[in-house]
Amino acid sequence: MRALALDMGGTHIGCGVVNEDRLLANTSIDAEGASSLADLLPVVTDALRALLLEANTTAKECVGVAIGFPGIVDACHGTIHSTLKKYEDAPKLDLAAWAREALDLPLRIENDARMALMGEQYAGAGRGVENIVMMTLGTGIGTAAILNGRVVRGVHGHAGCLGGHLTVKFEGRPCHCGNVGCAEAEASGWSMPQVARAWPGFPESALAKLEPLGFRELFTHAERGDTVACDVRERCLRVWAANAVSLVHAYDPDLVILGGGVMQSPEPVLTFVREYINTHTWSSWGKPQVQAAALGNMAALLGAVPLLTEEMHGASIKLQ
Amino acid sequence: MRALALDMGGTHIGCGVVNEDRLLANTSIDAEGASSLADLLPVVTDALRALLLEANTTAKECVGVAIGFPGIVDACHGTIHSTLKKYEDAPKLDLAAWAREALDLPLRIENDARMALMGEQYAGAGRGVENIVMMTLGTGIGTAAILNGRVVRGVHGHAGCLGGHLTVKFEGRPCHCGNVGCAEAEASGWSMPQVARAWPGFPESALAKLEPLGFRELFTHAERGDTVACDVRERCLRVWAANAVSLVHAYDPDLVILGGGVMQSPEPVLTFVREYINTHTWSSWGKPQVQAAALGNMAALLGAVPLLTEEMHGASIKLQ
Repeated sequence: MRALALDMGGTHIGCGVVNEDRLLANTSIDAEGASSLADLLPVVTDALRALLLEANTTAKECVGVAIGFPGIVDACHGTIHSTLKKYEDAPKLDLAAWAREALDLPLRIENDARMALMGEQYAGAGRGVENIVMMTLGTGIGTAAILNGRVVRGVHGHAGCLGGHLTVKFEGRPCHCGNVGCAEAEASGWSMPQVARAWPGFPESALAKLEPLGFRELFTHAERGDTVACDVRERCLRVWAANAVSLVHAYDPDLVILGGGVMQSPEPVLTFVREYINTHTWSSWGKPQVQAAALGNMAALLGAVPLLTEEMHGASIKLQ
Repeated sequence: MRALALDMGGTHIGCGVVNEDRLLANTSIDAEGASSLADLLPVVTDALRALLLEANTTAKECVGVAIGFPGIVDACHGTIHSTLKKYEDAPKLDLAAWAREALDLPLRIENDARMALMGEQYAGAGRGVENIVMMTLGTGIGTAAILNGRVVRGVHGHAGCLGGHLTVKFEGRPCHCGNVGCAEAEASGWSMPQVARAWPGFPESALAKLEPLGFRELFTHAERGDTVACDVRERCLRVWAANAVSLVHAYDPDLVILGGGVMQSPEPVLTFVREYINTHTWSSWGKPQVQAAALGNMAALLGAVPLLTEEMHGASIKLQ
């Protein structure tokens, strides 16, 4: 079974053609400066058509288009309910009409972190596991949960995907979401530079010369012994680990998958979070496994087939 | 439909005979000094027999015994998996055998906070609502969730009931559960006195003369203008509100119910948490309602009939 897949990230849109759990072809569209999704859709259409050629297949051979979107999504009705500082026009677009007109295919849309977890369960670190929580550590902190083999969505589509907005510091930093002290507001790609710049001694740190400042630079300078970088890295690790404990206590998984840009080099994050979960969770049965995501940036694209074939009560598209 | 109900609290065991959503008779057994549950069972048996007489009914007219227990419970198999500083012998007891021998009745057991939420949904503040999170603010912080009308339990029985152990302060106080900075470790009946005693100016506060120090005393002296009491109360309110936001973001409910001893006088907790949720949750649909529990200490007892009649896959007891 073949499908087209889109992963709408903060800085780029991943595009792919998949066959079951394999990626046949993929590319990436720069979305950094894009003000609207509507402007990008023709580019996306062209990219998908080129990928179909590259994969030596056609839209007719695909079951549909699956989109991972960074916001609150009603997967059942195929609508976007809320965005967060990116693709603000998306809720008003008729993406199903776009997919039908551009590719003559049905469309399903899901929160990007949920689709990434569906991909990891189908083709990556979560194969064969029925109870999983995933944290995607990137520009923001995306999360998702699968319990008893079913994606956790909640009555308004919020459940599972707002795990980066659990409070880890109730007197902490304001978050875009309206909360204070979310994990995302304390240790994500957008908040970490703010934390670092406010750190005592920052002007003397090697980090002060870097613009933009990302996790790659933070971790590199921590390894070189820069004191501020070490301190800020330690603080990020503690925030992620504390957030992971909250997710374990909330959802009771067998497996925690850590993904996102930070995990391109899994250490020291993987070891730190694993040990913290082992020592800090209350469990009557043992401790959940902690694994690095296996599919990297491709996880959401590989969630296309499980999303398109999921039995969804009242869903607007039917697939053969 | 009649049932016997037990609510095993930290300081006492609530005992009741219920008929559907009404309490026919109830009493309370002091459990403060009890070292083991086994020692208390004969007292419980006597109390239940006396209540049956008082309610002018018999065990034969009841469908079963329902127990709310403060720990990790496998409701499906009727076993207790983990305790937390109370009734430590309970996991080894055969409570089903006790109920059969003492009362000739089948037994179901559930986490006490879950059973309280089942009671509130059946007979209290949650009537007619299918998506609810409840926080019980007492000696500890108990939580429970009902989503799409089903009690959230998770694969190992941990989900929903460990919401008081979500991290609200990642560099906070150690908790009995193993975590650091849980809501319970920052603002519960057992931790609040520790927080107050460490507060600057505590020796000069009216609170310093109180032993034991509970929420009733804290709130009374805050109303009288004691500065330390005001500050500590404010901090408790922020912890509870931040924890409530985490629960809303985790479970996506339509309604948050606040219960426990603190809510015997619902203000200022209710107003504070309601306003905090309105301003601090990310929502694409509106904000969840925030209500005080309607059943007080009786909530768990009134969860007996919904617990005993719940269709539970693979459950060990069958009821007519």
